[in-house]
Amino acid sequence: MAEQTTTTTIDLPLKRPREGEENGAVSHETSAHISSGWFSEISPMWPGEAHSLKVEKVLFQGKSDYQNVMVFQSETYGKVLVLDGVIQLTERDECAYQEMITHLPLCSIPNPKKVLVVGGGDGGVLREVARHSSVEHIDICEIDKMVVDVSKEFFPDVAVGYDDPRVNLHIGDGVAFLKAAPEGSYDAVIVDSSDPIGPAQELFEKPFFESVAKALRPGGVVCTQAESIWLHMHIIEDIVANCRQVFKGSVSYAWTTVPTYPSGVIGFMLCSTEGPEVNFKHPINPIDENDNGCKSVGPLKFYNKEIHTAAFCLPSFAKKVIEAKATK
Amino acid sequence: MAEQTTTTTIDLPLKRPREGEENGAVSHETSAHISSGWFSEISPMWPGEAHSLKVEKVLFQGKSDYQNVMVFQSETYGKVLVLDGVIQLTERDECAYQEMITHLPLCSIPNPKKVLVVGGGDGGVLREVARHSSVEHIDICEIDKMVVDVSKEFFPDVAVGYDDPRVNLHIGDGVAFLKAAPEGSYDAVIVDSSDPIGPAQELFEKPFFESVAKALRPGGVVCTQAESIWLHMHIIEDIVANCRQVFKGSVSYAWTTVPTYPSGVIGFMLCSTEGPEVNFKHPINPIDENDNGCKSVGPLKFYNKEIHTAAFCLPSFAKKVIEAKATK
Repeated sequence: MAEQTTTTTIDLPLKRPREGEENGAVSHETSAHISSGWFSEISPMWPGEAHSLKVEKVLFQGKSDYQNVMVFQSETYGKVLVLDGVIQLTERDECAYQEMITHLPLCSIPNPKKVLVVGGGDGGVLREVARHSSVEHIDICEIDKMVVDVSKEFFPDVAVGYDDPRVNLHIGDGVAFLKAAPEGSYDAVIVDSSDPIGPAQELFEKPFFESVAKALRPGGVVCTQAESIWLHMHIIEDIVANCRQVFKGSVSYAWTTVPTYPSGVIGFMLCSTEGPEVNFKHPINPIDENDNGCKSVGPLKFYNKEIHTAAFCLPSFAKKVIEAKATK
Repeated sequence: MAEQTTTTTIDLPLKRPREGEENGAVSHETSAHISSGWFSEISPMWPGEAHSLKVEKVLFQGKSDYQNVMVFQSETYGKVLVLDGVIQLTERDECAYQEMITHLPLCSIPNPKKVLVVGGGDGGVLREVARHSSVEHIDICEIDKMVVDVSKEFFPDVAVGYDDPRVNLHIGDGVAFLKAAPEGSYDAVIVDSSDPIGPAQELFEKPFFESVAKALRPGGVVCTQAESIWLHMHIIEDIVANCRQVFKGSVSYAWTTVPTYPSGVIGFMLCSTEGPEVNFKHPINPIDENDNGCKSVGPLKFYNKEIHTAAFCLPSFAKKVIEAKATK
């Protein structure tokens, strides 16, 4: 028990005030932190904890107009995409997030034809949308071209989504794109955003939800990344309250497991506009696990219809808060 | 963006060979590792990643006959119990594990009367078993008295389980206890073990499951901690295969979220012996979230009947492996 220990060190930056924080705003640490071969994910969004991955090799580091972008080869999670120091995806567990954020909305409505993806520059959501053979047109509006370019270079199995001829890429601000979109034009909008600090902040606010509602057809659906029930119930409460005001159809919260996201879970806010009723908990547009609209994509790894329904079952502590908001 | 960064360091021990490892056995790092105010959890059970919690104060450090025992006050997860460098519970998320490992089996059978807990020295499972008013007798067999004593001192809201007059504490080896138990004597056995390396290793092996099956009444149930679908499918495959051979009733796998366990999820193996049929997926012995067999225990925080059923819905990658084993 007293044998000698060889140690390596991880430098973890202490929380420090940054430009803007004095006014109550928070932001992620922007210096993606690798030290002695470990990447550590630290943010005021999840104070007092950090997840670390062992780094084999840093493959890319750049600074776009919007954020720091990094790709590294990890020892056990495949390649990892990091924006402003926060893990966006790893090759090992990206299936859970991409499949759930896509098929939860698209399997809940009959024959989705026109779909908009906001964010999602890595292309993974596109890959999943493309499995639906009813879809005729896919718009994606990603603000940061560097994310698209880096994904195409380093994550071919994710960015394969761009190969589908139905995809139309728009580099720009999702908020502006939605404002300019013709009314009632989309069957589904999927908001694959980063956390509500940094470039994605507006995507969690009420005016944005109003634009989404306007762009959707009656009975159209939106699914938006909605943080962790373990860490961010206050944010979720606000999102639910906003959505309940804006969307006159269904408003439901779902969650799934993603090991490399803080607390190991990520949630989704699912809403529909007034019109044909949508019951998100009972999917009516099944996708088989071998469905494969695009030949270069393998079978579904995570999503199935049982886990679709299960995703809406919440632990009691979250259920109380979310259902209270939903019925007010 | 170029502002100065104050950094602190975490020492992460490199994986190193230990006594016994040369023969193919693996073990957790035994030196619970705190450096510069951060505790980091490292183990060959989850190579290439580490979860770290910021430490406010170490409250206890000891070495029992079986393992290293540590308690610290964390900055954001409350008090934390660590055995051999691995987090066993934090005050913030223990509800998920304790409630699910207990109510998944007990809500699946009518009127459980006699229950055995193997391991679970912290008392949290006892606290949950005690909510069931039908229960008349609770045995607990924990190998390590230090875990019991430390929990009573530092985790009163968990160890409160020991206050119930139906509880009988046995300090000793769970394997031996079960071998000596009268045949057909328990309605339910709950195996709240640490990982299958170290003192808990035998609790994952076939002879132990055979002893459990013998100690259960016909149609009795066992629920055992069964690792992570993201990290340990090979272990889970073996457990399922063993259980399928030993238990002639139902054999089902469930999982839940626990943020401070590696990969953020933990699984449970649920089995019943030959006899009255048990359908774990549809609980027939509901427990209300305000059920409270013991006055000093608050309402359920996590478990409810929807999340019970949802826990058995598996991602496709896990379903394939587990159902293949289950039907062989």
